[in-house]
Amino acid sequence: MTTVGKVIKCKAAVAWEANKPLVIEEIEVDVPHANEIRMKIIATGLCHTDLYHLFEGKHKDGFPVVLGHEGAGIVESVGPGVTEFQPGDKVIPLFVSQCGECRFCQSPKTNQCLEGCIYKATMSSLETRFTCRGQKVLQFTGTSTFSQYTVVNQIAVAKIDPSAPLDTVCLLGCGVCTGFGAAVNTAKVEPGSTCAVFGLGAVGLAAVMGCHSAGAKRIIAVDLNPDKFEKAKVFGATDFVNPNDHSEPISQVLSKMTNGGVDFSLECVGNVGVMRNALESCVQGWGVSVVVGWTDLHDVATRPIQLIGGRTWKGSYFGGFKGKHDVPQMVKAYLDKKVKLDEFITHRMPLESVNDAIDLMKNGKCIRTILSLE
Amino acid sequence: MTTVGKVIKCKAAVAWEANKPLVIEEIEVDVPHANEIRMKIIATGLCHTDLYHLFEGKHKDGFPVVLGHEGAGIVESVGPGVTEFQPGDKVIPLFVSQCGECRFCQSPKTNQCLEGCIYKATMSSLETRFTCRGQKVLQFTGTSTFSQYTVVNQIAVAKIDPSAPLDTVCLLGCGVCTGFGAAVNTAKVEPGSTCAVFGLGAVGLAAVMGCHSAGAKRIIAVDLNPDKFEKAKVFGATDFVNPNDHSEPISQVLSKMTNGGVDFSLECVGNVGVMRNALESCVQGWGVSVVVGWTDLHDVATRPIQLIGGRTWKGSYFGGFKGKHDVPQMVKAYLDKKVKLDEFITHRMPLESVNDAIDLMKNGKCIRTILSLE
Ligand SMILES: NC(=O)c1ccc[n+]([C@@H]2O[C@H](COP(=O)([O-])OP(=O)(O)OC[C@H]3O[C@@H](n4cnc5c(N)ncnc54)[C@H](O)[C@@H]3O)[C@@H](O)[C@H]2O)c1
Ligand SMILES: NC(=O)c1ccc[n+]([C@@H]2O[C@H](COP(=O)([O-])OP(=O)(O)OC[C@H]3O[C@@H](n4cnc5c(N)ncnc54)[C@H](O)[C@@H]3O)[C@@H](O)[C@H]2O)c1
Ligand SMILES: [Zn+2]
Ligand SMILES: [Zn+2]
Ligand SMILES: [Zn+2]
Ligand SMILES: [Zn+2]
Repeated sequence: MTTVGKVIKCKAAVAWEANKPLVIEEIEVDVPHANEIRMKIIATGLCHTDLYHLFEGKHKDGFPVVLGHEGAGIVESVGPGVTEFQPGDKVIPLFVSQCGECRFCQSPKTNQCLEGCIYKATMSSLETRFTCRGQKVLQFTGTSTFSQYTVVNQIAVAKIDPSAPLDTVCLLGCGVCTGFGAAVNTAKVEPGSTCAVFGLGAVGLAAVMGCHSAGAKRIIAVDLNPDKFEKAKVFGATDFVNPNDHSEPISQVLSKMTNGGVDFSLECVGNVGVMRNALESCVQGWGVSVVVGWTDLHDVATRPIQLIGGRTWKGSYFGGFKGKHDVPQMVKAYLDKKVKLDEFITHRMPLESVNDAIDLMKNGKCIRTILSLE
Repeated sequence: MTTVGKVIKCKAAVAWEANKPLVIEEIEVDVPHANEIRMKIIATGLCHTDLYHLFEGKHKDGFPVVLGHEGAGIVESVGPGVTEFQPGDKVIPLFVSQCGECRFCQSPKTNQCLEGCIYKATMSSLETRFTCRGQKVLQFTGTSTFSQYTVVNQIAVAKIDPSAPLDTVCLLGCGVCTGFGAAVNTAKVEPGSTCAVFGLGAVGLAAVMGCHSAGAKRIIAVDLNPDKFEKAKVFGATDFVNPNDHSEPISQVLSKMTNGGVDFSLECVGNVGVMRNALESCVQGWGVSVVVGWTDLHDVATRPIQLIGGRTWKGSYFGGFKGKHDVPQMVKAYLDKKVKLDEFITHRMPLESVNDAIDLMKNGKCIRTILSLE
């Protein structure tokens, strides 16, 4: 019995309010409207940005919501005006759209599509196709992969190789592309350079992998949790620093280790103090620091002399990748064994265990947990 | 009667302490030591950085001092080991050295020579060849052009075209190179782009000239003092904004004028609030903002989303020019009428009137005053 053209009832993890466990509910998923795609989500990662929304963000209007934005699935049906996708296509939903037509999409300099840019990716400005217990439930960043079915605008869906294992390439929907691209596309790490990566979750480890693949000769991995260092070595890190082992500021520690500071630094924590440290760990003259971690509660600050002294401060959103075009390439790179994905996966569990997955991340006990939705 | 090998007694404007008028004194200028050049200063500009040291800086150990770092002169004698210069050469002393040998000098990415970088250019770390009334008097940024004679290390002296008029090209010793280079070398303004320059002193006007020469199609000149707008037009500004004319934040004003923000912005004021505004006036995705104004008393801050949204924050020191190599080229560009200098000069007076020149700048009544020392 086909589901096409009908509202689908399925399981989803609903965040009814901030700071509370998610609740597995039956929700209704509307038919796709014009230019939309309804997809069956097969697997999803849990990313720190989901935790940020649940525990740290200040979006009063951001609940109830279905979180999750690092998924992969199969097209179930398409709405009017969709010609590029058909039922059965393997896809990755994107939290950064690529309309292909705005001046941002037309520029090689950025992936910030005007239609779904960082400033629009808040709850209130996006429509939702979910209801639960008679109530509208929001979609997170236009995706919401903690649901067996979701509806996404076609400008925010990447069609990927049919041979790709969805329960692994889902990581390319956020964390791995974000960290890898931040090093390769945003920092533009150079061969022979010295890099520092702050924060060794999936995003930071992917940044380590990006530095390595760009030919960095020295990659200093920094984390408060020394359990992360072993994994960092797998991705190419050469040096390991726990700020708690030092009484000096970490920027001074790195400066001494590198005779003046690193060429590139990447902040993959989401802490404005670490962002400052990452900038100030860079060498004068040409050091480039990239903010990847997410937080919007506080200002980030430094002394002007840090910039006048020749450092550059940038930020990276989804690693600078233009999702529709680049994510399929990254899937191919994985299939061709040019980027690692399996090494990020420390746990697998069903959607029903999502609160356990959240606890693992909160307690620093996992890199990525893959939730299965089948 | 030659002065070579002898201490020279000459006139200088001494700043005995902060927040006090300079005093014209007779000082003693020692013979040049190894690798040093003693030069007769013919003319000097007054730059806001001189005022910063006198009125705003917090260098308790920065007095007494001879200020001035935008001068031009003639070599009087050289110390042991100097072969590149001889008496009679026309020169511009540099507050950013170029030793030619450190890894910074060897890199095309920066002008931050290790020997005289921004971090060393504080009073206490530099030697001085001045005494007055039996007391050591400091040299400012290794130059001190408010003296008829000064002694500068050869790595911080540019030899220029003998036909150059010293009482004009002295402006290339700081303000004009700083602003012009910030646009051309640091921001790397692109043809057809939209730019905003905050602060229309000599540094800001030179930035306007740099944007214009790089082919910007729109240059928005921003200043609280509307008297500056007429001059900005001469250098190529197309739009003029006085933040006091608007109730909205200036970043919103510029965003509306430009459908989303400027491609490049340059802060030429020296105010951390304006630095933030300049960054936030840039377009998402690719906007580049350059800090040129000088202040080291407060942090500069923004929200991380401004960077993650695709803006780049940089700083510029002496416009990114490698002084020994590039200043002679800029002198040539002036002689070839490729850069303007005369248009910056609004007043000329003798060194004795230096306090009047300071008042003119404090009160926004000049662009550059040239002090003559002959
Ligand atoms: N810019 C983007 O497009 C984008 C996309 C995805 C995720 N993010 C952000 O990236 C960050 C990392 O995400 P993740 O999923 O890898 O998170 P994670 O929780 O798995 O990893 C964070 C790591 O940072 C470490 N850490 C915490 N405080 C630290 C400190 N002071 N110094 C050094 N290390 C510290 C933790 O021990 C942990 O290993 C989050 O802020 C997330 O929101 C940004
Ligand atoms: N980075 C470097 O290498 C370098 C070199 C030279 C000078 N500087 C710095 O550049 C800055 C400018 O120097 P200058 O000699 O041109 O100074 P100036 O005093 O001649 O000009 C400053 C201008 O800024 C304007 N202004 C003040 N507050 C403003 C505001 N809130 N918004 C807009 N405009 C405002 C003033 O009206 C004035 O026109 C100073 O901070 C100076 O120390 C830096
Ligand atoms: Zn994420
Ligand atoms: Zn677009
Ligand atoms: Zn100056
Ligand atoms: Zn050098």
